[in-house]
Amino acid sequence: MSAGWFRRRFLPGEPLPAPRPPGPRASPVPYRRPRFLRGSSSSPGAADASRRPDSRPVRSPARGRTLPWNAGYAEIINAEKSEFNEDQAACGKLCIRRCEFGAEEEWLTLCPEEVSSYPAAPWWVRGQLGKSGHYWALFDGHGGPAAAILAANTLHSCLRRQLEAVVEGLVATQPPMHLNGRCICPSDPQFVEEKGIRAEDLVIGALESAFQECDEVIGRELEASGQVGGCTALVAVSLQGKLYVANAGDSRAILVRRNEIRPLSFEFTPETERQRIQQLAFVYPELLAGEFTRLEFPRRLKGDDLGQKVLFRDHHMSGWSYKRVEKSDLKYPLIHGQGRQARLLGTLAVSRGLGDHQLRVLDTNIQLKPFLLSVPQVTVLDVGQLELQEDDVVVMATDGLWDVLSNEQVAWLVRSFLPGNQEDPHRFLKLAQMLIHSTQGKEDSPTEEGQVSYDDVSVFVIPLHSQGQESSGH
Amino acid sequence: MSAGWFRRRFLPGEPLPAPRPPGPRASPVPYRRPRFLRGSSSSPGAADASRRPDSRPVRSPARGRTLPWNAGYAEIINAEKSEFNEDQAACGKLCIRRCEFGAEEEWLTLCPEEVSSYPAAPWWVRGQLGKSGHYWALFDGHGGPAAAILAANTLHSCLRRQLEAVVEGLVATQPPMHLNGRCICPSDPQFVEEKGIRAEDLVIGALESAFQECDEVIGRELEASGQVGGCTALVAVSLQGKLYVANAGDSRAILVRRNEIRPLSFEFTPETERQRIQQLAFVYPELLAGEFTRLEFPRRLKGDDLGQKVLFRDHHMSGWSYKRVEKSDLKYPLIHGQGRQARLLGTLAVSRGLGDHQLRVLDTNIQLKPFLLSVPQVTVLDVGQLELQEDDVVVMATDGLWDVLSNEQVAWLVRSFLPGNQEDPHRFLKLAQMLIHSTQGKEDSPTEEGQVSYDDVSVFVIPLHSQGQESSGH
Repeated sequence: MSAGWFRRRFLPGEPLPAPRPPGPRASPVPYRRPRFLRGSSSSPGAADASRRPDSRPVRSPARGRTLPWNAGYAEIINAEKSEFNEDQAACGKLCIRRCEFGAEEEWLTLCPEEVSSYPAAPWWVRGQLGKSGHYWALFDGHGGPAAAILAANTLHSCLRRQLEAVVEGLVATQPPMHLNGRCICPSDPQFVEEKGIRAEDLVIGALESAFQECDEVIGRELEASGQVGGCTALVAVSLQGKLYVANAGDSRAILVRRNEIRPLSFEFTPETERQRIQQLAFVYPELLAGEFTRLEFPRRLKGDDLGQKVLFRDHHMSGWSYKRVEKSDLKYPLIHGQGRQARLLGTLAVSRGLGDHQLRVLDTNIQLKPFLLSVPQVTVLDVGQLELQEDDVVVMATDGLWDVLSNEQVAWLVRSFLPGNQEDPHRFLKLAQMLIHSTQGKEDSPTEEGQVSYDDVSVFVIPLHSQGQESSGH
Repeated sequence: MSAGWFRRRFLPGEPLPAPRPPGPRASPVPYRRPRFLRGSSSSPGAADASRRPDSRPVRSPARGRTLPWNAGYAEIINAEKSEFNEDQAACGKLCIRRCEFGAEEEWLTLCPEEVSSYPAAPWWVRGQLGKSGHYWALFDGHGGPAAAILAANTLHSCLRRQLEAVVEGLVATQPPMHLNGRCICPSDPQFVEEKGIRAEDLVIGALESAFQECDEVIGRELEASGQVGGCTALVAVSLQGKLYVANAGDSRAILVRRNEIRPLSFEFTPETERQRIQQLAFVYPELLAGEFTRLEFPRRLKGDDLGQKVLFRDHHMSGWSYKRVEKSDLKYPLIHGQGRQARLLGTLAVSRGLGDHQLRVLDTNIQLKPFLLSVPQVTVLDVGQLELQEDDVVVMATDGLWDVLSNEQVAWLVRSFLPGNQEDPHRFLKLAQMLIHSTQGKEDSPTEEGQVSYDDVSVFVIPLHSQGQESSGH
């Protein structure tokens, strides 16, 4: 881990520092709301200001970072969406130590130790034996980098607190019903067993609570510093032989092996969470302030559609049906557009994430936050059960990569590059750089006609079968 | 289809006839609420009155029915849960005819035609060519058979109405944005295509709407006739080369092929829908009237737990965490028990289904209905893509079967029986009977130590590659 990250780190409660010395653009970057076409019949994409097809990205050289176990990380700043990179990242080592005889040891730390000094065993075995683990996180900001910077500096502390609070259950064979281990009822262990509660459920619970706690911290910090914005969060944690992937937003993690591509996360967008969002608007119609329609139609309806029977979907439907168009159906749709252009309340492209406490629909008092969830979905990969090969990796990246490369294309790049470079100690770093390179429309890119990403792109390549003899990247 | 079903059928709006002549038990069977142990610390299963381990089932001979395409159906009345069988079934042919030149043809009918007169082609091909299809449905009642009987006599009519309403979209290559085919906007077809809306989405929408409509009919009918109760509903519809399986409740359908077992439905119980149910109680705490706690604990808490830190889950958590027990946590849990013993509000073992409009928690005014969904989950099997073998079947059954036999055990029975009986025209009927026989604790049963089902059991065996030359069952 490079010192660059530590420089950007500050404590929760401390006001967010202005990231640059005073100057013409030193004041916090105001939130630029996507153009919201109220009252007009917009075509898909009209409400989308997150892409700027008219401007080619401003690129900075991909920066390699020294990471534990040679994991490769490279990032590119582009699109001039704000003065500072809206993608942020964090990673480090987790140490869980048992607190014995009342000694006040720190349970869990995120620290920049080099791993080359570690025993020559794969990290997941070391993690299993030593009760230590690792943490990788990507945050993709919107409305400026403030929320993403705060998240990169805060979430691991929240996770540490949450894990500390349940560490007694984590180190037991089975979590006890009572944290102090005292059985109130002799059959308590049986109830825990019948419910199928395992130590990994406590890690999942800790991740869920940590995201919520971090969201509250960001809300307080942004309000105190008069700043705005939000971010997605994708976190991978290796602990006790398992890899936990927690996702809130539209970043993605996949496992790439010789004969397998396995998604480790699921994107949360207005489209993928349509039924949840429509359901909330059904239960609390006042959240739409009479300005939006909850229903989904193939396109925004016009006056000419009045009285016609058109295709629609409501909150309880996964299929489609027809309804006769009424005047209220002509309002702007709660979710509008499809694919990458889908927007919640004409404003936001994601439905989960951190921050956005102040975000309102342009020129209205309609809040986005009630529709956003800060809770991640957590998947668990039992690394110990995998029969790992040397080139098995997890690729984590923000949407800038996945907009341009499919899972299959990323897997193809991984499989093309790694086997021929097994001696290169920096191969995972180089692979991460190559993945980013592939989003910049080069002729040798695997994308059709060299597609270009106009968004920030950040990538982690995490080797699952890291060799102890390798030196770290730089 | 046997005449027996038609005898039990009556029109929506018509009052539910008393099914037997007046006598000591002729008045509607009162809803027997499971014993609800208020204020006590019950062990799992204490609130469960749906099983009667003290009484062996009263069995009626398995009855074979003449079904389209030789599908086997057999049922068994047992457990004396009410005077009449709480399991009900319906099946028949669906005909969709295009209405041309204003002729008032019926679009879709459910009729008892024999299939032996049909061309010698698999049903899914006939369905595809002739725009006709088939319908199978199982309903498992609780609190008496009234809702299940109503559903068996009503749901297909609701489905017919819903399909009729969208038939123009069903027969088109792609559903038009406007039902009359008139484009308001030249790019309408493009919007429909971008949203990926296909004819099968209209069938899914029709099934979803039909379940809701049927639920409303049942609510009105039961109220008018002063009866109570509810039922689960599992429906399979073959139409245009696809098999749609719609499920609301804890019945199950699986596809069994030589090398594949594929679940075609998902059970909806208080456990599988925990987060949705807890979320509703979070949003509307008044639904619990201060009598229940929304939180899940490994067991019901007691006074001794006060102040301790215990394992818990709330609506936003898929993992577990610890909380310090407060007085309000000692209330009866919204969802209590695990597995087959899990109960919603101490009363109901399913979280989706039809009816139950009047159902309240014993001795309170707390309604169950707000927590129940009548909307099914619909899965689609593209039969035309399967490369069918002669012994490929769909097995649909109520929970009485699945409580005792696993998917693998049912598949084993299917694969043991069918290949050796290919010449038997009644083999699917016999297979259905054999499956039910296997739930009655016989020594030759594949279940461990001959497990016994004390519940009603109903089974459909639907051959996917039915041979035209076969005669129908009897």
